[in-house]
Amino acid sequence: MNPVIKGVYLEQDRLYIIDQRLLPLQEKVIELKTVTDVYNAIKSLAVRGAPAIGITAAYGVYTGMKEKHSAEPEAFIKGAQEVIHYLAGSRPTAYNLFYALERMNGVLDPAQSSAGMLETLKTEALKIHQEDLEKSSRISQFGLPIIPNGARIISHCNAGFIATGGGGTSLGVVHRAHQEGRNVSVYVDETRPLLQGTRLTAWELEKTGVPYQIIADNMAASLMKDRKVDLVILGADRIASNGDFANKIGTYSLAVLAKYHGIPFYAAAPVSTFDFSLKDGGGIPIEERDEEEILSFAGTRISPKNARAYNPAFDVTPHELLTGIITEYGIIYPPFRENILELPGRADSPK
Amino acid sequence: MNPVIKGVYLEQDRLYIIDQRLLPLQEKVIELKTVTDVYNAIKSLAVRGAPAIGITAAYGVYTGMKEKHSAEPEAFIKGAQEVIHYLAGSRPTAYNLFYALERMNGVLDPAQSSAGMLETLKTEALKIHQEDLEKSSRISQFGLPIIPNGARIISHCNAGFIATGGGGTSLGVVHRAHQEGRNVSVYVDETRPLLQGTRLTAWELEKTGVPYQIIADNMAASLMKDRKVDLVILGADRIASNGDFANKIGTYSLAVLAKYHGIPFYAAAPVSTFDFSLKDGGGIPIEERDEEEILSFAGTRISPKNARAYNPAFDVTPHELLTGIITEYGIIYPPFRENILELPGRADSPK
Repeated sequence: MNPVIKGVYLEQDRLYIIDQRLLPLQEKVIELKTVTDVYNAIKSLAVRGAPAIGITAAYGVYTGMKEKHSAEPEAFIKGAQEVIHYLAGSRPTAYNLFYALERMNGVLDPAQSSAGMLETLKTEALKIHQEDLEKSSRISQFGLPIIPNGARIISHCNAGFIATGGGGTSLGVVHRAHQEGRNVSVYVDETRPLLQGTRLTAWELEKTGVPYQIIADNMAASLMKDRKVDLVILGADRIASNGDFANKIGTYSLAVLAKYHGIPFYAAAPVSTFDFSLKDGGGIPIEERDEEEILSFAGTRISPKNARAYNPAFDVTPHELLTGIITEYGIIYPPFRENILELPGRADSPK
Repeated sequence: MNPVIKGVYLEQDRLYIIDQRLLPLQEKVIELKTVTDVYNAIKSLAVRGAPAIGITAAYGVYTGMKEKHSAEPEAFIKGAQEVIHYLAGSRPTAYNLFYALERMNGVLDPAQSSAGMLETLKTEALKIHQEDLEKSSRISQFGLPIIPNGARIISHCNAGFIATGGGGTSLGVVHRAHQEGRNVSVYVDETRPLLQGTRLTAWELEKTGVPYQIIADNMAASLMKDRKVDLVILGADRIASNGDFANKIGTYSLAVLAKYHGIPFYAAAPVSTFDFSLKDGGGIPIEERDEEEILSFAGTRISPKNARAYNPAFDVTPHELLTGIITEYGIIYPPFRENILELPGRADSPK
């Protein structure tokens, strides 16, 4: 069995998330009452992780339309599409956001009553969430064989429970290997600037009891040289049809370093992360975030008064550097373009 | 002319440093009154940078012996050697510390009076400092030709004014190129965990007006891939006779990334950084620092309660990844072992 901690969920028809900005010092659940709440929660990274923001946005569409159940069907559809359009602007890179919103759009049916559509939206959001949990479970199962006994693993950012519907992609594989008694341990990249490794991955590994040490991002290379790393496994925010993929800034660096040292390098993601409209990674939009994330920390200024910073949130790793992509249908190996085209999950993807 | 800002100096016979822990928010000068003050200043990184800690330790020997000028010469020598031994324990990796202390030891002469030896210690410390300023100036001159007009440079940690006697090694080259109108700009690696890039290098570049942007350490690779980086230039803490060298953690990572992207990668250091007793980098002792430097950030706890971290302060880069080493005698290119053996400065090195 795969352990599950849900960072987003619907309970008694209300939408809740664990506020990831406060972890690990505070485990605070907040309710997202309005579409604006949902938008802000995604934009500010109160909820983050490609699958988790897709699920939250799906619930967000339902939440935003609850008050509109007595509108005319046409007006209801128009309103829902405005909500979908608005939420699609919350963050640009993770494909799962657009995947989930497109699914929500796809179930709007003018032949239904507004109350009926509202119910359908709820059902679809719950289904997206439930499917994601199943995908996580399958990813962890398919990923298990790549984890040797005693494996020392580098993780980057957070692709665990709270980055998904509750299971985890790359970190789900790690949790599972630990459960199966494989004696794994993790070097947790702290993941500057927002420290998702230090704050979130370490918090998850504490929960499941996996031994780990946090490292600064610039230490991974030195550990690889000293033969202290057996594999790198991390998540993905958007994967093009040739296997090029965007993920948290620093991923490309690890990919080059792993290649140089002959260390296996895997990404793990559900098929909802694949953007089949892109022939390669060149077309993936990369979010640039506020310079303050680098210039200050926790309200403390750490740089000179007039300092400037460059703060891309993601980078793109070419498929040549990938050993494999772990999906809910199995591990995709090279040649990536051909093997990705054959993905059965592709039928799920928006047209 | 090379600009100079002294982070350590003797004034009216008193030893002062700029407290680098408080930069850039506060430019505070503190006096080091005792040998313990000097030891703690080096250990706590109030003064840091390989040449700067050598100079501070040399002044520290003088400062520590000032009260002993009326002792018997034999007792004076014994006392001075105890001070030297004590200060040698402050930090393990930078070779300049041992170079400077060995020079201080070398001028102790039982044929002199204690007052005479005290004067000799002062003269030698001032000479070490003055020589370092001249070496910085020569390094910046020899380094100039490697900086093309419009060069976009990655720097790591801080190897500038305050890391040396006042001139700078790798950053000295950058300051000089800027002065010569070469339109250089710098991507400043923030340099986790102690942010010497964000705090110190950015502060120095503000002083000299060099355009720069601070980046998280994990962003360098992505900039290289996007062809936004023309060269990497950084300092060194200890160089073995084959060119392998220790420098701030993250240096090896940059070296591999520069090699992969075909980008020139230079270290700059005076010959006092070379440890000719080591045939390669395998014998360089690497300081491991307190886990708290990673587990907390600017005084704020950022990791789970029981989290552990791994915190090596340096890594070792093999000479194969180096384009060249800029010294006060010119740039050393491969074959490094042969060319290092011919260094004229080698005569200066301790036996």
